[in-house]
Amino acid sequence: MSTAALMNQQIRLAARPVGMPKPSDWNVTSEAVRDIADGEIVVKTLYLSLDPAMRGWMNDAKSYIRPVAIGEVMRAGGIGKVIASKSPKFAVGDAVSGGIGVQEYWIGAADDKTAGFYRVDEKVAPLPKYLNALGMPGMTAYFGLLEVGMPKAGETVVVSGAAGAVGQTVGQVAKHKGCRVVGIAGGKDKCDFVVNELGFDACIDYKNESVKDGLKTHCPQGVDIYFDNVGGDILDAVLTRINMKARIIICGAISQYNNTAPVKGPANYLSLLVNRARMEGIVVFDYADRYHIGAAEMATWMKEGTFKTREDIVEGLENFPDALLMLFEGRNFGKLILQVAKE
Amino acid sequence: MSTAALMNQQIRLAARPVGMPKPSDWNVTSEAVRDIADGEIVVKTLYLSLDPAMRGWMNDAKSYIRPVAIGEVMRAGGIGKVIASKSPKFAVGDAVSGGIGVQEYWIGAADDKTAGFYRVDEKVAPLPKYLNALGMPGMTAYFGLLEVGMPKAGETVVVSGAAGAVGQTVGQVAKHKGCRVVGIAGGKDKCDFVVNELGFDACIDYKNESVKDGLKTHCPQGVDIYFDNVGGDILDAVLTRINMKARIIICGAISQYNNTAPVKGPANYLSLLVNRARMEGIVVFDYADRYHIGAAEMATWMKEGTFKTREDIVEGLENFPDALLMLFEGRNFGKLILQVAKE
Repeated sequence: MSTAALMNQQIRLAARPVGMPKPSDWNVTSEAVRDIADGEIVVKTLYLSLDPAMRGWMNDAKSYIRPVAIGEVMRAGGIGKVIASKSPKFAVGDAVSGGIGVQEYWIGAADDKTAGFYRVDEKVAPLPKYLNALGMPGMTAYFGLLEVGMPKAGETVVVSGAAGAVGQTVGQVAKHKGCRVVGIAGGKDKCDFVVNELGFDACIDYKNESVKDGLKTHCPQGVDIYFDNVGGDILDAVLTRINMKARIIICGAISQYNNTAPVKGPANYLSLLVNRARMEGIVVFDYADRYHIGAAEMATWMKEGTFKTREDIVEGLENFPDALLMLFEGRNFGKLILQVAKE
Repeated sequence: MSTAALMNQQIRLAARPVGMPKPSDWNVTSEAVRDIADGEIVVKTLYLSLDPAMRGWMNDAKSYIRPVAIGEVMRAGGIGKVIASKSPKFAVGDAVSGGIGVQEYWIGAADDKTAGFYRVDEKVAPLPKYLNALGMPGMTAYFGLLEVGMPKAGETVVVSGAAGAVGQTVGQVAKHKGCRVVGIAGGKDKCDFVVNELGFDACIDYKNESVKDGLKTHCPQGVDIYFDNVGGDILDAVLTRINMKARIIICGAISQYNNTAPVKGPANYLSLLVNRARMEGIVVFDYADRYHIGAAEMATWMKEGTFKTREDIVEGLENFPDALLMLFEGRNFGKLILQVAKE
């Protein structure tokens, strides 16, 4: 396929947001897809992963990854198809996963380290699954739970953001390891989903009931592992119910990402002292050399039918700014994905 | 020695304090020392340990130990001499350490589990040392640092409350393990003491300088281990300077114990995520079966002259209520001990 005359629509960061990102924090630009040189490829974007972590990348702050610069194409992981190749690494037609960015086409060296493209197999699982359980959220859940949480059969695992990309997988991996699993999610539909579809033992609807009471009811043996995706008041509520030697995995704090006030620290953190408990942060990249192990185990469960995932797919590159807000307003139901082009 | 006609002055909890304990939160009572039955002993109190943890015991809240009841003799660890014995376990004249309580005499079964008396040897170290490095604060420091902190030679260890009972020992044990040690203490005298007498590499005077700037200056390689005795703003400042895979030992939070407002949680706790770091609580009792190992190692260092401790001794049982406040106002300089009777 010739890439001549293709235009590449891109969404760039125009300003650093204060609080929730506004339309004016983005610029939509368009440029021609340039000819490629030896070693280069063109990837046509099919799906982009929308993640809470994106909000952090927009801040000019030291973190585990450099901030997106003003004027730069917004960073995003995604799945695409190679439509032109002058590299032996990828052939036209290959489905690939990597750091595509919020744009219709990615153009550059096939072995670009930042993009880090690798082939994905449509025969093993539908492509969107590679942005969910078989992608970053799945690896975050799998390695965060197993390596930092170290669940033992019979223990009670609580996970917030239970219907979200990471939460779905945390709960199902914990069930596979023999744990009692209690989710925390917003709304009856999400709670019904994680219990009835994913097999969680219970789910607390934080929008309509007291989390503290819910934990009392559904964790009669206390909480051994809490996988925290939200921070704020929910983290504080769980801290009051942890067991001796409990493990709290700090994966994110979506309740705090758009704060204009300072982050609310966990007021009940001294429960760590009383209970000789541990709170530990994880970043998925640390487990990159073992992603294939996690993906293989979850793919096996998927085939068996004992592991399900749900995606919430929004169409159209131009809808990126609003779709991103869905995450922070809890409007997505399942792993949020932006479909940029038809497969 | 006959115990007939001895009167036992006792300090009892009269009311649960709101904020800083007031004189009216205590009752001073007096009762005759009763005759002992078979298996019982009378211990004459010499020294009582005054500790920040006492403030927690006065609250009616679930913790690692039951609260002191209203009307009950205030709980305290101490050193005493056996002055009467109908037990083969202890002889008159034995120096013992255990849960004496804030009173002149302890009367009960020699093998009472709550008191947990054990013999201490005046020839190995002066008796007050058994309430400092060779007692609970020392064991807290030793096992907290080594078991939870897991220091490696060359790493940077920061400890708050550096001139206090736990802090002194944390810093010196860390030095013995080959670490760079930076203390945080209130006032020039305390800072000079930990650097010049105890051999810390540096000390930040939080009353007269910015902790954040001090950490920048004195921890050029960042912070690998932070042993936290204070919580609050100092914990938040250290969180901004931790290294990848840092360990934060939560031993106490003296800045928060008399709060009437809710505890201030660490607003910068997401630094744990970015740095894949860990925050973990400790309670000294978990290491009871290995106290002798820690005590033996520190006693050896003391004999070599490479390990020093400082006590701040206040005299008179009746001064207990005010002496306790010295801890929370930073008025003590070294391990705070109440001397109830002459040796």
